[in-house]
Order: sequence, then structure tokens, then C-alpha cells
Amino acid sequence: MSREEMDALAKERLVGIARTWYDQMRDGIVPFIRLPTRTKRNIEYDDASEVWKYGERESTRAATNEKGAVHLLKMAYLIGFLKQQLVENRSSTLRELYYISEGWKKAKFGAQDESNHLIEDLEIITEVQREAFHLRPEEDGASVFGPLRIRETTRRGVKEMHCQEDVGEAGYPIPNNVDNLEFVDHDAKFVIAIETGGMYARLMENGFDEEYGAVLVHLKGQPARSTRRVLRKLNDSLGLPVVVFTDGDPWSYRIYASVAYGSIKSAHMSELLATPQAQFIGVQPSDISDYNLPADKLTEQDVSALKAELTDPRFATDYWRSQINLQLEMKLKSEQQAFASRGLDFVTKEYLPTRLSEMGII
Amino acid sequence: MSREEMDALAKERLVGIARTWYDQMRDGIVPFIRLPTRTKRNIEYDDASEVWKYGERESTRAATNEKGAVHLLKMAYLIGFLKQQLVENRSSTLRELYYISEGWKKAKFGAQDESNHLIEDLEIITEVQREAFHLRPEEDGASVFGPLRIRETTRRGVKEMHCQEDVGEAGYPIPNNVDNLEFVDHDAKFVIAIETGGMYARLMENGFDEEYGAVLVHLKGQPARSTRRVLRKLNDSLGLPVVVFTDGDPWSYRIYASVAYGSIKSAHMSELLATPQAQFIGVQPSDISDYNLPADKLTEQDVSALKAELTDPRFATDYWRSQINLQLEMKLKSEQQAFASRGLDFVTKEYLPTRLSEMGII
Repeated sequence: MSREEMDALAKERLVGIARTWYDQMRDGIVPFIRLPTRTKRNIEYDDASEVWKYGERESTRAATNEKGAVHLLKMAYLIGFLKQQLVENRSSTLRELYYISEGWKKAKFGAQDESNHLIEDLEIITEVQREAFHLRPEEDGASVFGPLRIRETTRRGVKEMHCQEDVGEAGYPIPNNVDNLEFVDHDAKFVIAIETGGMYARLMENGFDEEYGAVLVHLKGQPARSTRRVLRKLNDSLGLPVVVFTDGDPWSYRIYASVAYGSIKSAHMSELLATPQAQFIGVQPSDISDYNLPADKLTEQDVSALKAELTDPRFATDYWRSQINLQLEMKLKSEQQAFASRGLDFVTKEYLPTRLSEMGII
Repeated sequence: MSREEMDALAKERLVGIARTWYDQMRDGIVPFIRLPTRTKRNIEYDDASEVWKYGERESTRAATNEKGAVHLLKMAYLIGFLKQQLVENRSSTLRELYYISEGWKKAKFGAQDESNHLIEDLEIITEVQREAFHLRPEEDGASVFGPLRIRETTRRGVKEMHCQEDVGEAGYPIPNNVDNLEFVDHDAKFVIAIETGGMYARLMENGFDEEYGAVLVHLKGQPARSTRRVLRKLNDSLGLPVVVFTDGDPWSYRIYASVAYGSIKSAHMSELLATPQAQFIGVQPSDISDYNLPADKLTEQDVSALKAELTDPRFATDYWRSQINLQLEMKLKSEQQAFASRGLDFVTKEYLPTRLSEMGII
């Protein structure tokens, strides 16, 4: 879909909500909206698409009382603003949106949480992402480095860049709206998503991208939506396997899970944001003992998080159960940069090639 | 200085420390090092360079007891490692360095704080920055967008890029080592350093860079060393005025102060990291009332931070005293994105042009 078509679709869907309210009122019905309940209990695994989605439970917001009426009023103002923004080809951040509501009198947002939540509601009803409403997040996307040529449609024209040849040492920074990004061609065999900047730079310095045909993606900790969308798109449209390389602790396993399975907050977008084929490459608890890595003791919080993961459906596999139980036994965790204790080349000459061939990727 | 010359200088200075120890031992002197005391009481304003520097107080570390001897042993291992890294044209992060010391037996670092501190000691003794030792920080530099052509020397060759024409919407990401960056040419009148990603994107979208010849630099909150170095270099080598645009609260004023005056931690590097000519453009406390901006109440922490700034020599000017006192009276703070309450164009059509002409920049 072109940028213009996407804008027209988003506008049509937004205005459609207001049109429904108009029809309801004309037919003597008090205006309302219906949405899936957004709780952990209403999230289900969808076998066909291999991601987590909202279930059947729904809740209704109607203008039958003041609270419901004000809610719909706010949504109406929001729809009006977003429609105008699309017409004028402008964009804004979620934070700006909150401030813009200053002029909306009774429809003014009490806090940014409220406007963020309403935007998520609009995403669910319209089945269009907030990026298509021209809303920008505050946080940055991450960076990409590897044998990949991209084309980005920007406000200043279309830019074509090769992610090794036309970028500096910091790589190509992923834009907020991944819909404006096209992959032109590539010479890659797989994608490796990396938690820390230090390891991303290590792989780049050691020439891992060139030697193995790897596209390096820096996750910057818990990845932004745009980063997760790029991973999905690399997997989907180029058919490249995706592996996730993080620290060996329960919080990092959740980074992997959000890449592979999505999260409750964005379950309505799982099919665009999650990469079910993504595989975890390490640091595995078994690596800590196999490679005798420098390690820290698990804290109480770490232990509770690991135990919670044992009952989390996203980790309900033999592989994860045995790794998590092993870690609870060892009571240790290691960072990905701990491989440096065996020399700066160990991770790219030994560890990753061994794991990649075990996993059947190289 | 070319990259090769810089490498040679760094190596020479590092090995020089070890050579001094050798000479001391040969002359029957117990080896020692001498360093300025790194505390708030030993930081002085240097009129000539207009930045804060360490004063006259010094402390000595000598191998006269076990603690001192182990300290020098660690430094010796560190010098050996860094020298080898320079010879092999490798680099590493501060975190990797900490792990590498696993193999150094008695010289192994107890925690990363210790290795970070030793690196700062080496910077002070050698008068060379850690980037010249090929050490990388974990954190990223920020991004630049504007009428500026740069040349970056990377491991994969020299790349030349125009920071409007050859980059995507996220801009050009600043590399870790600013010594590898050259400014080729430009068509700019000034530089505006911006605290939040939302405002950086706003100025870009509104074409502020084109209309006013502005180089936009995203600070990403408290700026990384590389970001501060780029600002200094833009001011120094291109003679461009630098203005700093942050939220209107005490924590943001400290962002401005770290750009303009440097910090205690890096007082030995002030002449490279600080931009004394940098001016604060806003959000000023007086703007909150003048423009009737949406505001939040000051918290107790905010009030204490403002009071601390009243006694901070970096804010000892009539301008800052009156602004800070005004804010303590109003008991309010505003974010830079609060200008959105007056429309998305207000900041670029009204606020910034008015301030820039008051300040004599346009």
C-alpha cells in the first residue's frame, strides 16, 4: 500500500467510528463502542498465526452515563484531530497530543495514560496502527547494520541506503514508521537481534556481518515497536531466519518473548509486531556452566521472575523449562559481554558459529 | 591529527606511565602515581578557557602498602591491554574490559566502577581521552539533522554524508569516537541542541532546519560524551552559535549546564567536552507565565534541586537567579512539548524565532 492509500484508509476508518455514532443516534440508540477486554485472562494463543491475541470477552462503553459520555466525547475530539492531521499531512507525538487536548474543554485528558489508552482503543477498532494515524512515539527505534539495501520514504523525498556501505559506524537508524521502509535487495543469510550496544559494536568490529551474511539489529534493551516491526518484516518479506541474542537472565528472556510472541499491551497488533519464527540463541543458562562464564548470583527478584516464567505460556516448552530449572539450580546469571573473558574474538569465532550450526541456520 | 598519529600518541603516553615506574624502581624509589583529587572542593573555574577544571589538590598512590601495590598492578595490566588493543587496531567496551580482567588474577577488577575509575585516572595522567584508547561506551550518541556535510572514518572505509540529503527521518547518528568525524562543509547559521526526541522530530517536520539554517542535535536527555563533543566541535571549528532547548525544570537546567560547563566527573576533559558559549534558549520559567503553558506543580525534589542550583557556581548569574527565584515563586514547571497546547506550529513560528532574535542569533 502506498503512503497515500494508507492515509486514506486510516482516515476512512477513523471517520467510520463517528459515522457509526451518527447512525446510532439517528436510529434512537444511545451511542456506544465495543472493545475486547484487555486483560491477561482475555489473551489466547492463535494457532494459525502463532501469536497471542485477544479472546472473546468484550466490554462496552456507552453514553448512558456521564462517564461513558465523556469517554466518547474524548474519542470524538481525538478522531477529529487525527483526521485533520492526516488531511494536512502532519504528525505528532503522544506527548504533544496530550497537550493539544488542553483546548478541548470537557474532553481534555487528565493524564497521558488516558490519551495513550484511547489511541490503543482506536487501533483496535480501526485495525490500523497508530503510526498510520501519523503518531510518533517518544522513544527511538534501534539501528541496523548488514548486507541490506533499504529505501525510506521521508518528508524530504525518497532515500536509498545500503546498511553497510552508506552508513557510519552507528549503522542505519530505524525510522518510527516502518511502513515507510522498503527492502530493495540483500545478500543476507539471517538476522541477529542483539540486546546491548556493546555486543552490537563487537559483532560489527569483528566483521561478523560480512563473514556470515548477518543483518545486525540492535534491540536497545526492550525493543521499541518499530524495531519489532522491522524484525517481523525481515522475517516475513525476505524469509530470513531471526535469532535473538541477549543476556542470560529472566528479564532478557522476556525481551526474546516480546520479539517472538508479542505482549499483552499490543496483542491486537501481534501479527505485525511479533516474529513467531524467532529463535533464542543465548546466553543460555547451560552456556554459563559449559563455557564457565563470569556470573553473578541471582537476586530474589530474578528467582521470582524465573518462577513466573515457568508458568508463563510463552515459555511452556521443554527447552525453556529445562533451561530455567537449570538456572534456578545454579543460582547464576551471565551477561552477553561476559564472553569477553575468553577474548574479544570468542563470541564471533566460537560461540555464535557453534550455536548457529546447532540451530541449523548456517 | 590522523587516526594513526592519534593511536601512536595514545600508545606512547600509556607506555610512558609504565616507563616512569621502571625509572622509579631503577632509582630505588617505590613506584607511585600522582593525580588531582576528584571532588567538588577541588574544582575551579578557569577564566581563560571558560570551563571548570580540577584545582591544585593532589593525591598519591604508591606501592608502599598492599592496597597501593595492587592498585598499580591493575593499572599496569590495563596499560598492557590497551597498548595491545592499539597495536592490533581493536576496540572494546568498558563492560568488556571488566570481563577481560577475569584473566588478570590479583589484578582482576572487583566491580565495573573500579575499572571505569582507573580509565578516568589514565585519561587524566595521559591527557588523552578514553576514545583514543579505543574504548567504547555502552550508551549511544545522539542524532544530527541539518545543512551539514560530514566525513566519517569507519572500519569499513571513509563515508561522506549530508545530514539532510543522505539520511532517513531519524537523522545521522553520532559515532562514539568524534575524532573520526570531520565537517566537510555546511550552510548553517546556528546549532540547536534539543532534549527530547519529540521536539527534535517536531522541528524536523516543521522544516525549521531549512527555514533558519539550523543544525538540529538530539540530546536524548543527559547527553553522552560524544554528543557533547560534537556540540563543542560545531561551535569551535565552524564558529556556529549553540543554543540548548530543554524542558523547564531543574533537571533540564543541569542538562544545559553539562553542555556549557561540563561536569565534575569529566572536569579533566572540559576543554573538549564543554561549550562555554552555549546559551540556554528555554523553556524559561518566565515562558510558563508569559505563554500560559500547561504546567505541573513542582515536587519537593524539584524545589530542593532548584535551591541547590541557587548555590551552584554554574548558575551564579543574574539571569539564572531571577529565573530560578521566579520558578520557586510560581511553583510550576513545563515540558518543551507543552507548546503544542498552542498548536503544532507555535514553537517554530513564534516561540523559537522570538527567542533567537532576542538572543541576537537571527
